[in-house]
Amino acid sequence: MSASGALSWPSIELTEPSPPTLEALNAWWRAANYLSVGQIYLLDNPLLREPLTRDHIKPRLLGHWGTTPGLNFIYAHLNRVIRERALDVLFVAGPGHGGPGMVANAYLDGTYSEVYDAIPRSEDGVRALFRQFSFPGGIPSHVAPETPGSIHEGGELGYSLSHAYGAAFDNPNLLVAAVVGDGEAETGPLATGWHSNKFLDPQHDGVVLPILHLNGYKIANPSVLARIPEEELLQLMRGYGHTPYLVSGGFDGEDPLEVHRRFAHTLDQVLNQIAQIKAVAASGALDTRPAWPMIVLRTPKGWTCPKVIDGHPAEDNWRSHQVPLRDARDTLAHTQLLEHWMRSYRPEELFDESGSIRASVAALAPEGDARMSANPVANGGLLRRDLVLPDFRDYAVDVPSPGGSVSEATRVLGTWLRDVIAANPKDFRIFGPDETASNRLDAVFEVTDKQWNAALWPIDDDNHLARAGRVVEMLSEHQCQGWLEGYLLTGRHGVFNSYEAFVHIVDSMINQHAKWLKTAKGIPWRRPISSLNYLLSSHVWRQDHNGLSHQDPGFIDHVVNKKADVVRVYLPFDANTLLSTYDHCLRSVDYVNVVVAGKQPAPNWLTMSEAIEHCTRGLGILEWAGNERTDQEPDVVLAAAGDVPTLEVLAAAAIIRERMPRLSVRVVNVVDLMRLQSEGEHPHGLSDREYDAVFTEDRPVIFAYHGYPWLIHRLTYRRHGHDNLHVRGYIEEGTTTTPFDMVMMNDMDRFHLVIDVIDRVPGLASTHAVLRQEMQDARLRARAYTRAHGEDAPEIAGWTWSSVATPNDRDRGSSAPSIEPEHHDQKE
Amino acid sequence: MSASGALSWPSIELTEPSPPTLEALNAWWRAANYLSVGQIYLLDNPLLREPLTRDHIKPRLLGHWGTTPGLNFIYAHLNRVIRERALDVLFVAGPGHGGPGMVANAYLDGTYSEVYDAIPRSEDGVRALFRQFSFPGGIPSHVAPETPGSIHEGGELGYSLSHAYGAAFDNPNLLVAAVVGDGEAETGPLATGWHSNKFLDPQHDGVVLPILHLNGYKIANPSVLARIPEEELLQLMRGYGHTPYLVSGGFDGEDPLEVHRRFAHTLDQVLNQIAQIKAVAASGALDTRPAWPMIVLRTPKGWTCPKVIDGHPAEDNWRSHQVPLRDARDTLAHTQLLEHWMRSYRPEELFDESGSIRASVAALAPEGDARMSANPVANGGLLRRDLVLPDFRDYAVDVPSPGGSVSEATRVLGTWLRDVIAANPKDFRIFGPDETASNRLDAVFEVTDKQWNAALWPIDDDNHLARAGRVVEMLSEHQCQGWLEGYLLTGRHGVFNSYEAFVHIVDSMINQHAKWLKTAKGIPWRRPISSLNYLLSSHVWRQDHNGLSHQDPGFIDHVVNKKADVVRVYLPFDANTLLSTYDHCLRSVDYVNVVVAGKQPAPNWLTMSEAIEHCTRGLGILEWAGNERTDQEPDVVLAAAGDVPTLEVLAAAAIIRERMPRLSVRVVNVVDLMRLQSEGEHPHGLSDREYDAVFTEDRPVIFAYHGYPWLIHRLTYRRHGHDNLHVRGYIEEGTTTTPFDMVMMNDMDRFHLVIDVIDRVPGLASTHAVLRQEMQDARLRARAYTRAHGEDAPEIAGWTWSSVATPNDRDRGSSAPSIEPEHHDQKE
Repeated sequence: MSASGALSWPSIELTEPSPPTLEALNAWWRAANYLSVGQIYLLDNPLLREPLTRDHIKPRLLGHWGTTPGLNFIYAHLNRVIRERALDVLFVAGPGHGGPGMVANAYLDGTYSEVYDAIPRSEDGVRALFRQFSFPGGIPSHVAPETPGSIHEGGELGYSLSHAYGAAFDNPNLLVAAVVGDGEAETGPLATGWHSNKFLDPQHDGVVLPILHLNGYKIANPSVLARIPEEELLQLMRGYGHTPYLVSGGFDGEDPLEVHRRFAHTLDQVLNQIAQIKAVAASGALDTRPAWPMIVLRTPKGWTCPKVIDGHPAEDNWRSHQVPLRDARDTLAHTQLLEHWMRSYRPEELFDESGSIRASVAALAPEGDARMSANPVANGGLLRRDLVLPDFRDYAVDVPSPGGSVSEATRVLGTWLRDVIAANPKDFRIFGPDETASNRLDAVFEVTDKQWNAALWPIDDDNHLARAGRVVEMLSEHQCQGWLEGYLLTGRHGVFNSYEAFVHIVDSMINQHAKWLKTAKGIPWRRPISSLNYLLSSHVWRQDHNGLSHQDPGFIDHVVNKKADVVRVYLPFDANTLLSTYDHCLRSVDYVNVVVAGKQPAPNWLTMSEAIEHCTRGLGILEWAGNERTDQEPDVVLAAAGDVPTLEVLAAAAIIRERMPRLSVRVVNVVDLMRLQSEGEHPHGLSDREYDAVFTEDRPVIFAYHGYPWLIHRLTYRRHGHDNLHVRGYIEEGTTTTPFDMVMMNDMDRFHLVIDVIDRVPGLASTHAVLRQEMQDARLRARAYTRAHGEDAPEIAGWTWSSVATPNDRDRGSSAPSIEPEHHDQKE
Repeated sequence: MSASGALSWPSIELTEPSPPTLEALNAWWRAANYLSVGQIYLLDNPLLREPLTRDHIKPRLLGHWGTTPGLNFIYAHLNRVIRERALDVLFVAGPGHGGPGMVANAYLDGTYSEVYDAIPRSEDGVRALFRQFSFPGGIPSHVAPETPGSIHEGGELGYSLSHAYGAAFDNPNLLVAAVVGDGEAETGPLATGWHSNKFLDPQHDGVVLPILHLNGYKIANPSVLARIPEEELLQLMRGYGHTPYLVSGGFDGEDPLEVHRRFAHTLDQVLNQIAQIKAVAASGALDTRPAWPMIVLRTPKGWTCPKVIDGHPAEDNWRSHQVPLRDARDTLAHTQLLEHWMRSYRPEELFDESGSIRASVAALAPEGDARMSANPVANGGLLRRDLVLPDFRDYAVDVPSPGGSVSEATRVLGTWLRDVIAANPKDFRIFGPDETASNRLDAVFEVTDKQWNAALWPIDDDNHLARAGRVVEMLSEHQCQGWLEGYLLTGRHGVFNSYEAFVHIVDSMINQHAKWLKTAKGIPWRRPISSLNYLLSSHVWRQDHNGLSHQDPGFIDHVVNKKADVVRVYLPFDANTLLSTYDHCLRSVDYVNVVVAGKQPAPNWLTMSEAIEHCTRGLGILEWAGNERTDQEPDVVLAAAGDVPTLEVLAAAAIIRERMPRLSVRVVNVVDLMRLQSEGEHPHGLSDREYDAVFTEDRPVIFAYHGYPWLIHRLTYRRHGHDNLHVRGYIEEGTTTTPFDMVMMNDMDRFHLVIDVIDRVPGLASTHAVLRQEMQDARLRARAYTRAHGEDAPEIAGWTWSSVATPNDRDRGSSAPSIEPEHHDQKE
């Protein structure tokens, strides 16, 4: 059942809205506009009970007026139809820099004062509301986590439709009203966002109503869609699969009541069309993709602000984008113009003696959770329920000895994800550009399909395409990310699986989401939401098909710049560690979990119980791989993070065991990269004591790392022994097509690691010059082989630890005697 | 004059293509397909002179067949019209993973053998051509810098139209044929790329002919645009402002000759329409935006490969995306199927006895530079001429004493850029989302306009919009980046100005461009192109209007992961250093230059001659700001990189001078960030000796940095004294709206820097406990002031060095006695 209690999509008889209705809409709009202007300008005298003076005006005028009256206009009209039709509506403000508008509406409908005690519904409350806006210690100028009713940060443009569709998935009774600004409409993500309608299931998902708001201008330019012929614009919208409805008005001083009438009438038509579609869809009888309605609303930018300021047009011009009347404090004529502007909304009719909104004005708003600002879907943590997770231990692969079996790690994960989907049929989805099968998660297709609502052809029968399914694939990383964000922010769970290199496409989006999470954690009424989980397979080391353009492990570097309490990075190095890691990720909240894992056949190293222990610690010593003497520190530590680096480190350890048997070697694997940071810098960080117990205080550490090597230096620069840490990783050295040639090109191969040991451990360079030369020769031979044969030599490609050693089953696993398990992490 | 000698756009009489013409087209297509399949599969027996066996087949089958026959088809037809109409054509292969096709065509027209001696036109040459493809030590599987005729890496999808329009700007006689894959068409950047036609000047720019190739499938899914009704697709294209022409064929075994006929006829129609538009445009009589033609070509994915493999459809199915017949080497039936497939192209008719292409087949290609593979615009360095640069010294601001004048640095730069534009009216452009004026470069509008070809209204008269102009602004960072890349790669110059935070939107694009530059440097026939210059203003420290969502300095971190010989990062800290830096950037080639500079009024620190000296070194000691004793190392080094950090460091130095006069302080500023890296890691890196001469070997260094602090650690972790380096920078701490509150939130303010000095210099903590407390109190007071007044206290906001000291004019400037100027850099 929806928040408002709506169980259906009523169709109503179309009548012209009555004059009192139009007046009520206009009164709300005036009130919201008044409160918006007040936030931008006023420190005091909030209800203009006295003549406006310089001292009432803020010293720094910040914010964006231009888009605000349009947002307020639409919000007012949605209030009406929510009441009349008992709709469940989520409002998405694409032009989110119109923050004052959304705050004003939340204040008008009462939500704001309910969640913020300091902003009551009184003259003092209005004063505080005005003062806090874009003020030190106050609220940001954009729609933000602080704004009730929002799931959408307004700072970066382009994602309103993606978020809207993400919210609509699996919410069959929800209407998402998504206002798209004509500036935002020029961005790439938004331009392809319209195609989301080919991925929506009219029966089991909700409805997105895009409202393209053409106010004509951006910061300093006209907008493209406002300057193409109307027929061209309508064709564009039809081409996107919509039925467009056009409402235009407010230009040259046209009476707003007439524009209200027109928009109200159109909105009724549109909602009736939606009701018709939903009725057919609910019956299961809809077998074609409906041409969902959308609205084009063309009104003046900065509507109702002064028409001309200092001889330049303001209303209906780009000059009203931010703060018209920039000299309102310092120029008397502008102070008076501001007062005239604000009084044009007739505040005395809107607020009573105490400074409260008059009941007649407030009455337009629906009640309780039906208010858009109070809709629980916009505070998804309220609705979130934990996933029902099958026991991941049951999906373990058998590992008779380290390297004693081979798996494709993601394929194993796929079997567990299959059962996660089966157990959670309504609130878990997998998003990805086109790679769920390529990333070998195809077991999921035993229980679900790829949701697709463009044409289905008979040939698709064997391709797991259907009107409804838990996997959603569109070749747009922006869409996948935006959908998932919208889905999580409204209380659900999900995974984004993608190529490691191309997830950079959403760098800027994950910035915004991480900032949202950071801020939301500090807002008491926001409840925790599910973590955003990445599964990055097709990683940098295995781009045999694609080469240099597909090699980039820098997404990890990008996310670790975000606040430490939001970001987690995991590099499971075999199937069982991947299972254990992902179980943890799907239980967690309020994080960005980046998991990089291989999809190619690779040796399994740890049994499930070992994997759990190892992942719980986040890193550990692989005792079976080293040959330390127990009575002293090792001569050298070989460390690895990532599946390919670990394989090379183990192969190097095997060579050392054979060729330098008296060298005391410790082998370490790191799954949870954040363990490397100091405990003061990251909640997962090891204490220095724990770190030293694993890496020693002063022995050489040769670290083979999945990504750019300097990240390891960055994470560990405060650690003891950092001067003796030598990192090998990806250094962007050209293209090749065989796995071993690839590690050789980046100096991270087993032979080079042995050379590193010889070069770094005091004394070895002189005693082991021959071995060093042999390693050089082995590299040359390996390279020559690939160039002659087009593949890696069998003894290299087929190498595994089990051919080297037969450790005692009881003694193996990983250990790290003095490390506390990362309890905090495991509980969440 | 164009490469092919074409001076005009001829219209020809429409006739049906003759049967010999169709046969010639088909022969070329068969040959290109044969050579493409051969590259994917064959090690030997390249002309099938003997029966195909397992040993002739590569052990690892890599590459993408699915899109290739479509690319080959289009290429063949363009060859014909280039010859018939003497056109100058650049081919952009959006589905660039169809690399074997583009290589095959370049081999067929002779270019490949001309630039690669090892691949002659003979049987040996064909063998070598086949073997090198996706082979260790060979060429990548995608269209890449190694591919003659390409400016477009095929690895990441979405940018073909942006690159095409970038190439078309200021090339009035160039036709850019841009093949858009239906997978790529789902990406955001491509979806908005269609709107580029609103920014093209039909008179002074070239023509982009988009060819949307619907082969129906991506990796494992149908494509969206292939699965919407045809009328919807046509409306979408009309909505984008095009006149669409549809050609469909090749399904269910339809004779390719018939499809050739249809496509040839359509191409003639389209080129005649273009010729008509260009004729009117050339006369200056075109006053509306033309509905440029575009073609929708619908053919089967993997066209001409086996229809069914192992019971599954291959041709016209997603299964032909990469390598159909994956078991060609290991399964006899598949080996035979491959042989049958390859023989279906009738190689004996295509190659002569020596293994050369038969003249009758090769004759379809145009000659010399008219060949698309040899078009000089695709090797832009051939056409590039140095910019005519006005002497930047003439634009210097007067700096009577450090901090003795105030400028908006970017506004000063704008005056120089204005004259750069005037002096280079045809090969220099500024691209940006909507911020050229906001970033205060508006002096450029004294000599040029913003190019805009959507509707122009009278109200635009004062907004510098025109059909032709050197500034191009669209609210899509993807478009701006893509246009600039296309413009540079075809031999021109430009700047991308943007918000610092949102340039992350193009992280993935700059990855690809940097990889292109790195690779192209190693290809002898590729000539250097102009550097890609960023001007990132509206930076992290001055987001008063916008707050947290607009704060992200991590683009610098992102680019420094790319190869050191490609990336440069500059943080000029006043107007004169910005001028000097940018002059250098516009002279350089083959770099990505990231310049971050402020646009707000800020003190000027260096005279022009000092600025030149400082920028030539890249960093230096500001002797006038420190108070070192000459006979010994300083007690502490205060270093800064960036305008806001330098201001805070100088203010801290002033406090220390007054309150701890006996402390010996050195003040250092870094403009060229790469100077911090070791010389072995970056060509700009200082030697350790030079580094120590500036930063000392062991004294505490307090470093105030523009971006995330750990980047400084990463760049310096190999340096002496790194353990005593303490960096303050942006740590993503919440939102505020005043500049000083912002630096306080991130602990980078002057007061905190003084506290850092007290805490880090041995002995001060006990002797200066009172001062330390005063600094704490000063912070609290400053915070309280902003919260009370909404702006920073005047003594803080108005502080400048000139109020502290009156240095001797001759003694100031920067110095770094033992640092060699970065000659290499200055020359380029």
